[in-house]
Amino acid sequence: MAQDEIITAAVLVIGDEILSGRTKDQNISTIAVHLTAIGIALREVRIVGDEEGAIVAAVNVLRERYTYVFTTGGIGPTHDDITADSIGAAFGVAVDIDPRAVAVMAPAYAARGIELTPARLRMARIPSGADLIINSMSAAPGFKLGNVIVMAGVPDIMRSMLVAVTNQLRTGPKVNSVSIVVARAEGEIADLFAAHQRAYPDVAMGSYPSFSEGQYRTELVLRGADADRLEEARVGLARMLAERELS
Amino acid sequence: MAQDEIITAAVLVIGDEILSGRTKDQNISTIAVHLTAIGIALREVRIVGDEEGAIVAAVNVLRERYTYVFTTGGIGPTHDDITADSIGAAFGVAVDIDPRAVAVMAPAYAARGIELTPARLRMARIPSGADLIINSMSAAPGFKLGNVIVMAGVPDIMRSMLVAVTNQLRTGPKVNSVSIVVARAEGEIADLFAAHQRAYPDVAMGSYPSFSEGQYRTELVLRGADADRLEEARVGLARMLAERELS
Repeated sequence: MAQDEIITAAVLVIGDEILSGRTKDQNISTIAVHLTAIGIALREVRIVGDEEGAIVAAVNVLRERYTYVFTTGGIGPTHDDITADSIGAAFGVAVDIDPRAVAVMAPAYAARGIELTPARLRMARIPSGADLIINSMSAAPGFKLGNVIVMAGVPDIMRSMLVAVTNQLRTGPKVNSVSIVVARAEGEIADLFAAHQRAYPDVAMGSYPSFSEGQYRTELVLRGADADRLEEARVGLARMLAERELS
Repeated sequence: MAQDEIITAAVLVIGDEILSGRTKDQNISTIAVHLTAIGIALREVRIVGDEEGAIVAAVNVLRERYTYVFTTGGIGPTHDDITADSIGAAFGVAVDIDPRAVAVMAPAYAARGIELTPARLRMARIPSGADLIINSMSAAPGFKLGNVIVMAGVPDIMRSMLVAVTNQLRTGPKVNSVSIVVARAEGEIADLFAAHQRAYPDVAMGSYPSFSEGQYRTELVLRGADADRLEEARVGLARMLAERELS
């Protein structure tokens, strides 16, 4: 791998409950923070319902476009859990009960005195050619097929699978970020900030406003792989803000 | 409008800060709950960065596919706010300072003793043919162009714009939902629940597990437009769970 190769990713959240508003997604932010920390650039997120056509279409677009696709949701034992079958359909491979998954699940359930019912065996259905993602939280594994990583929707289990799969991932240069917070509305710093962005085209600059208790607040965020260049841009911005009495 | 016409929507969240994990999206859930409550079916969500090509591509796919597209983010005064220009590019229309927007913004800023700088005037740049979304939280308006509704990313302002635009939207049959919570793992109720889904194909049934403090919990959610049918399905499910001593 070239040291400066950019590794990209998309997240596909699967679940009617997110689209109906019944459940608030908690996984996108966790995955975004994790990928940024290990040097994978998250480029796109999609949320679709429990519908095979929608899942297949999204997976096939995203796996072509990005280095990795991370899915969450739809790998439980109930009839609305259709992610494994949908991934199989997307890749055009069979989905069957995988002896490796059964070998992981059976002793774990037995130890907890839980019966391995036909419903629970649904969670051992893995597309042909996939590697299992064994994890510490759940007896039922996630899996990785090609560049698609399939994880649970329950946040604790998702996190465990994300950690478990991480050492199998290629990563690129880590993007660093620094920020300056000013007690100003965006409109007051926008011209200066745009000029600074033009002076440092290799540093990504974003401005994030908030307003609470009658007080404007704007966070100016600078992001880039070169830490020295980033620090130079930050110091320059801080100086200009001070000169114009905006800091 | 036919009473039973299904009205659909997508949400497009625009912002590097969500993809980097710096900011946790708070708007998707708010919009999902609101649309469900007024009888609009949210079918898909996408999150893209502050990049015109990605925004244009997503807007043009989604506005063809769904009745409405709601965007959040990227309409502030700074250089990374490129949503208005991207929407203009998606529709192939010009984007200029709109006298109607200036007429709203100028007195609001004057009343607060704030200067209408060139940076702030960027927020008056509206694609040709759009209607403004005047709202109570922000002097700078959102806008609606065709079936695309463009809103701020700051949650309080987004909510205000969402409320302001609501009476301009067509709505369909409201989807009701009822639920039964059992202190069981999904695997124990999955077979019964799947059989019940087969008996009521017109009712959408989903199962949502959680686990905390050593206790399994599964929420069985039934959704549908016909309240009587929904209640019949709920009562039947509760009876079956009781008979098998699973409730």
